[in-house]
Amino acid sequence: MSIAKVTSSVTYSGAPDPRLSIVKERNLAQFDLDQMNYFLEGSKKRALETRKFIGQMERDPILAASPKDYDATKAEHREITIQKIDRLSRYIEVETFDELERRLSIVSVFDPSFHTRLGVHLGLFLGCIRGNGSPSQMQYWLLRKESAYVKNLYGCFGMTELAHGSNVAGLETTATFDEENDEFIINTPHLGATKWWIGGAAHSATHCTVYARLIVKGKDYGVKTFVVPLRDADHNLMPGVSIGDIGSKMGRDGIDNGWIQFSQVRIPRFFMLQKYCKVSADGDVTEPPLNQLSYSALLLGRVVMVKDAFRWSARVVTIALRYAVGRRQFRAALAKESDPETQLLDYPLHQRRLIPLLALTYAFSNGANVLAETSSSTMDTLDLAVAADDKALLEEGVEKMKSLFVASGSLKSTCTWLTLNTIDQCRQACGGHGYSSYAGFGKAFNDFAVQCTWEGDNNILGMSVGKQLLKKFAAVKKGEEATGILSFMADYKRLLGTKPVLEKGDLKHPRKILAAVETALVRACARADEVLELKKGDTDFIGADLVTLSKLLAHFFLLKAFLDKIEATKDQKDLVPVLDLLAQLYGASIILEGFSGVFLTYSVATTEAMAHNSTEHIAELCAELRPHVIPLTDSFMMSDMMINAPIGYYDGDIYENYFRTVTTNNPSRQTKAPYSAALEAMLNRKSLEERQRFEREDEAAEVLSE
Amino acid sequence: MSIAKVTSSVTYSGAPDPRLSIVKERNLAQFDLDQMNYFLEGSKKRALETRKFIGQMERDPILAASPKDYDATKAEHREITIQKIDRLSRYIEVETFDELERRLSIVSVFDPSFHTRLGVHLGLFLGCIRGNGSPSQMQYWLLRKESAYVKNLYGCFGMTELAHGSNVAGLETTATFDEENDEFIINTPHLGATKWWIGGAAHSATHCTVYARLIVKGKDYGVKTFVVPLRDADHNLMPGVSIGDIGSKMGRDGIDNGWIQFSQVRIPRFFMLQKYCKVSADGDVTEPPLNQLSYSALLLGRVVMVKDAFRWSARVVTIALRYAVGRRQFRAALAKESDPETQLLDYPLHQRRLIPLLALTYAFSNGANVLAETSSSTMDTLDLAVAADDKALLEEGVEKMKSLFVASGSLKSTCTWLTLNTIDQCRQACGGHGYSSYAGFGKAFNDFAVQCTWEGDNNILGMSVGKQLLKKFAAVKKGEEATGILSFMADYKRLLGTKPVLEKGDLKHPRKILAAVETALVRACARADEVLELKKGDTDFIGADLVTLSKLLAHFFLLKAFLDKIEATKDQKDLVPVLDLLAQLYGASIILEGFSGVFLTYSVATTEAMAHNSTEHIAELCAELRPHVIPLTDSFMMSDMMINAPIGYYDGDIYENYFRTVTTNNPSRQTKAPYSAALEAMLNRKSLEERQRFEREDEAAEVLSE
Repeated sequence: MSIAKVTSSVTYSGAPDPRLSIVKERNLAQFDLDQMNYFLEGSKKRALETRKFIGQMERDPILAASPKDYDATKAEHREITIQKIDRLSRYIEVETFDELERRLSIVSVFDPSFHTRLGVHLGLFLGCIRGNGSPSQMQYWLLRKESAYVKNLYGCFGMTELAHGSNVAGLETTATFDEENDEFIINTPHLGATKWWIGGAAHSATHCTVYARLIVKGKDYGVKTFVVPLRDADHNLMPGVSIGDIGSKMGRDGIDNGWIQFSQVRIPRFFMLQKYCKVSADGDVTEPPLNQLSYSALLLGRVVMVKDAFRWSARVVTIALRYAVGRRQFRAALAKESDPETQLLDYPLHQRRLIPLLALTYAFSNGANVLAETSSSTMDTLDLAVAADDKALLEEGVEKMKSLFVASGSLKSTCTWLTLNTIDQCRQACGGHGYSSYAGFGKAFNDFAVQCTWEGDNNILGMSVGKQLLKKFAAVKKGEEATGILSFMADYKRLLGTKPVLEKGDLKHPRKILAAVETALVRACARADEVLELKKGDTDFIGADLVTLSKLLAHFFLLKAFLDKIEATKDQKDLVPVLDLLAQLYGASIILEGFSGVFLTYSVATTEAMAHNSTEHIAELCAELRPHVIPLTDSFMMSDMMINAPIGYYDGDIYENYFRTVTTNNPSRQTKAPYSAALEAMLNRKSLEERQRFEREDEAAEVLSE
Repeated sequence: MSIAKVTSSVTYSGAPDPRLSIVKERNLAQFDLDQMNYFLEGSKKRALETRKFIGQMERDPILAASPKDYDATKAEHREITIQKIDRLSRYIEVETFDELERRLSIVSVFDPSFHTRLGVHLGLFLGCIRGNGSPSQMQYWLLRKESAYVKNLYGCFGMTELAHGSNVAGLETTATFDEENDEFIINTPHLGATKWWIGGAAHSATHCTVYARLIVKGKDYGVKTFVVPLRDADHNLMPGVSIGDIGSKMGRDGIDNGWIQFSQVRIPRFFMLQKYCKVSADGDVTEPPLNQLSYSALLLGRVVMVKDAFRWSARVVTIALRYAVGRRQFRAALAKESDPETQLLDYPLHQRRLIPLLALTYAFSNGANVLAETSSSTMDTLDLAVAADDKALLEEGVEKMKSLFVASGSLKSTCTWLTLNTIDQCRQACGGHGYSSYAGFGKAFNDFAVQCTWEGDNNILGMSVGKQLLKKFAAVKKGEEATGILSFMADYKRLLGTKPVLEKGDLKHPRKILAAVETALVRACARADEVLELKKGDTDFIGADLVTLSKLLAHFFLLKAFLDKIEATKDQKDLVPVLDLLAQLYGASIILEGFSGVFLTYSVATTEAMAHNSTEHIAELCAELRPHVIPLTDSFMMSDMMINAPIGYYDGDIYENYFRTVTTNNPSRQTKAPYSAALEAMLNRKSLEERQRFEREDEAAEVLSE
């Protein structure tokens, strides 16, 4: 009521009407939005399913996101999150795992804390049991104990410690086998080995999959996985288990991350997960074929993060572009004095800040789909191999897993970095209003930032991918076959040297940009090899170059996947021209301009081409894409609940929506702050002289000096 | 008590001891830390004063920052902030303005909300009156009403509106002169003209300096400034004034930003600020010599932000580097199996991520000092001119002001962008622990982010600086003299062309890098001119190039000031070698590598030099600086209160300090969450079948199908 009054108490003559602007944009659509949405989601079936999930959740009184969330305290967030998990568990009981996975990937965008707090249980805890437990162990913990339905047990994932994160093999918690009692003794030897950052540990979890060094008969077998109960059926801490809340974080307030110390906690031998590694009652140890297999739960997380990169980017790019259409400021250099102020999106600089990010988002979509398919087929192979006890198939699975580690490592690190940057660039593009919590960017940045660190720190992943690339390059030079995505390496002799392969005229051909990336990769590998030799094989010295190689590889993967998909879509005459422009722009801006140092240093592109690219071509491509921008963002088909930012809602009514949200969330009938008395007392305080009891006045001086 | 117990209940054998590591680093110091600190602060006098301010405030029970702040809610932050303002007002009453200014620049680092909430009153509200009011007006509002001591009045700064931010000249609030009553009528014509983002408006301010269109006898004279009372002496809203809280923001929770609507609010004619612009009782209008003079308050804000860039960077770089010394992870490629794990800072990639940022921080320090001096001398000239009614001096002041707009615009935008990036890079360099609020980065990023937007959006500023540069370049080509910092432009004919001026051997000579920046600036100007001609003078088309020019100009300014200062310090033999390395690294990494596209596209540097730079030289410089890193950060002389991040405290005891902070702020005796009942009810819920009342069982199917 009070809002309506405030709104109507001011005259609207001459007021901006951003709604009209966005309608005009929509009338310009030159392609079918549904078809474009199917392109993004991978298929019509997937697209419709996504819409079903969104529709169900946005109508749900508990699950739906709302601008109110931006005002919730940490304590409120945590409580609401449990209500949401409770509510979603009812869906889980009646859905397939595949459906749940896709439903959760949507939750990840509109409520990341909720996604992760539940994801730790479903993805990491259960994923760890699925990945490391025998079929019977899986059956027991997931189904018989009903934890797969978020029932009875709630799990957390006890990997990282206070002093060890990236170096999982260096974890210091111990699991010592006590042959006499057929038990393991789980122990935290010192403060540094305290399990740290454990999502769900502080208050939720009843069980933990603990990564601990297996010690049998005094021998250290390295880090294995164990199911350790933390809380009893009354939710009280088990003896020997100390747990605390690690408190405030940059983001993801809804998750109760905690620390855990184990003081000689005993568990039965069969609580060890023994799919690949076994300890018999006599203390005989069977070791796993590949130690990394125990991290497969993390790997799935990486795949999810590439999908996240797509959806989060889609969300923030939509907000910033809708705002850029509704917002007018100044007049363009060539506009007439009588023109209305210019829409932000009609400024070439603004186009250049945002439209390349839109192109990148389109490239993410298909890259994420391709990676997800590869990952799921790899897991299937491994599961099949274990079920059939087929050694050859297991080896095949292990090989697939290794190359998935490279692809997912390169994509996870590159895509999360790019997305974090996209969120902040979109925020900045909305000026002051981008800084309001209700614009959504602040929370998005804070919630997303951790993706650059967890489940494999981006730099560590990047270095590891770079090393694999160099190794492969060396092998190919020695005659090994170059296969799969790296098949271009076979041609390395032709690609080396300093002859430019990209000239000005090639910029409009994304396949030529792709070829330039191949050349850049080969030349940068060769240069890294050279330096490595100079530095006597010190791979650490070339760390930064390794990370650059990994980023280039990711872009190669994304651009190739994008171009292949466009080719496969070539029957859809209305989609192809605009998709082609997006691919051109992605190549010209994010790749060529983003790595201009590499392309020029190794003379992959001519200086003429690069000068033209940065001072004319990118701006021209942006201008060509300009009329398609709103239809392209509408094609993400994100509902207002998913957007959850009044300056980015579908109707484009940026000021009215924003004002309504602000006044609803901050009712102003009470005009004074709760602490107003203190403020008023400060302003109305006595004079300095009076407060000093006039002790510093001339009169006092006279008296005191007598 | 409970903390000590937890800590001592685990054995410490084999635990990491990061304290030892940092002691070793300190023993390596090769220069005098006090002298280095004087270099950074500009002089010994300034340095000691800074320490005095810090010392006073960190002992103050109300003013001091503490890790507890990271757990405060928005409501708590706002209340605490008023307590701090109250407390600081007692210092203000007895200090000079210059002392206060420097004290506040320290407050800005350890409590940015507090700094801004008070800064809006002291810097913007009073600054606006000082900049735009006549001497009597200043005397009245500041001294007679005692607002300069945060007494009686509390001011806010009513510039931005919901629909207008950057385009100040386009603001829509009106101030219509009513000759009959000798009053102005302040009015908000529509929702878009609502004053928005006004710091202090929601609950604190009693008065507002309103930017409104002066309308006299139907003529619109553009935007002028007016003092408008918002709340009466009892802190109740004046009639016609509507105010609300704009709610949650990305950061700076302690500030009560608000919106204001004026519904035909009347103020006496003499409430208009009339230093440059006057309206007589008959409605005669005297216009100001330069409209931008009314924004001088903003200009001072820009100068402060460059100083902020130094102090904030110093703080976060110190945290990340101390952590990098204490934290060990993995073993370096060439380490022996028996070595302890390697300190993060001994990895070349980690050095490369952080040490260039340390070098940049050193460059910031002197740049900020130089800019502050220029700014204060400009303000003095203007004040003197107005006081003496000296037209020639006023003109000189206006000219100085114009060039200050360029320098401060270029530096404010470039330095705030770089600092925002530095904060996030430092966070990422601390891995998972960087994401804890207690590491300080999250709040720092959220609080700092707005500096890229307010008081001149960085892109708008950058474009405007770029335009000025192009204009100057055109003028110089037509024979105008190139003066001051741009004197190198005189030489433009020699600098044009495609001959490289930087070769591999030049990389160790920062003066040669400076010369390369000059060449790059001239060539990029020439290229921009070319494109501009092609695009028929559409300066918007070259927006991105203009911003790049502005960034390059800022680096030119910073590097030049840094090198000049090193030269002036050349008697201090222990400081110079390490300062020279810092200048080399700043030039090689932030400038040459950061703008590699420009340096290569315009053939300013050879490809050989750039390849060597990026794959060897930068890494080697980092390695040379490696032993100096802790002494260099210690030289910032930031106390633990200023650092306010346990992983970055002076003693380097990262794990103990962090654990103590976490357990103090999150006591764990109560092991269940307040909402635990809901969580337990979810886990222990009835079976699905029972909750479905068995309606979907076979038995029901049989009965129902009969």
